[in-house]
Amino acid sequence: MGFFSKDIKTMDDLFVHTLQDIYYAEKQIEKALPDMVKKATNPELKRGFETHLQQTKGHIQRVEQVFKMHGREPKQVNCPAIDGILEEANDIAGDVADKRTLDAALIAAAQAVEHYEITRYGTLVAWAKQLGRADCASVLTENLREEEATDQKLTKLAESKVNAAAA
Amino acid sequence: MGFFSKDIKTMDDLFVHTLQDIYYAEKQIEKALPDMVKKATNPELKRGFETHLQQTKGHIQRVEQVFKMHGREPKQVNCPAIDGILEEANDIAGDVADKRTLDAALIAAAQAVEHYEITRYGTLVAWAKQLGRADCASVLTENLREEEATDQKLTKLAESKVNAAAA
Repeated sequence: MGFFSKDIKTMDDLFVHTLQDIYYAEKQIEKALPDMVKKATNPELKRGFETHLQQTKGHIQRVEQVFKMHGREPKQVNCPAIDGILEEANDIAGDVADKRTLDAALIAAAQAVEHYEITRYGTLVAWAKQLGRADCASVLTENLREEEATDQKLTKLAESKVNAAAA
Repeated sequence: MGFFSKDIKTMDDLFVHTLQDIYYAEKQIEKALPDMVKKATNPELKRGFETHLQQTKGHIQRVEQVFKMHGREPKQVNCPAIDGILEEANDIAGDVADKRTLDAALIAAAQAVEHYEITRYGTLVAWAKQLGRADCASVLTENLREEEATDQKLTKLAESKVNAAAA
């Protein structure tokens, strides 16, 4: 989360910091997805990434909404975790010889991104509830559910087509 | 995964590379956990991290076993994702003023680690099956199940005690 730990004294500080962390992460994912769309060869995977790019724009808006509901200006903090995850995704999106193997690798990279988001939104929802912000928890749960659904779609796609073709 | 993409031509290459990625990740987690044990103040959380350190040693042995079953020497590749996740965990393990807030942050950091492992083992199990290596899939599933159980334990701990105390 790129925490400056001295800034974090209360659960409210921790909640806001983690919101800043996922805000940065979503913005980085928004930048990374067009390259994944371009690299994917399976048409269904390509469409899946395009859909997720649109969803990510919606997630960014929801996070901005939560900042406002909580009386804060939207702000990003560096997040080495998503930087590392996207660095791996980018490495794999290079020129792998076999295109179907690349599709399988892209799915794995995308699922690592989804799982990062799932864990952060899961945490944020729990903390929002504990802070008495059921309203914020409700908006964050919408993002969580969409990330979970994307992860499940990627699993199905991998099992049904992409990996089988590459194996 | 720190892929050198030119090395990856087949699903078998991809499987071995991802095994090298999780092998590196598990070794880094093994190094990071003693600090998390030290920083945790809630006794149940402290014990949980201690238990997970022991489990992690077992996971490393299972990954080594899979390398051998697959006719390969155990080898690590750099994994910027786990480096980033652990960097965040380490940042938060600094001197946060309120100890209960720190416990909540440590749980969140540990869950990000678990989710990274869950996604990688999930992928490895699927690929092992597609490569006709049900034997490797079975060993990797044992690690996957333990990571999932740890994540669930952390969620329960967070909801029942740690966050409530900090909020």
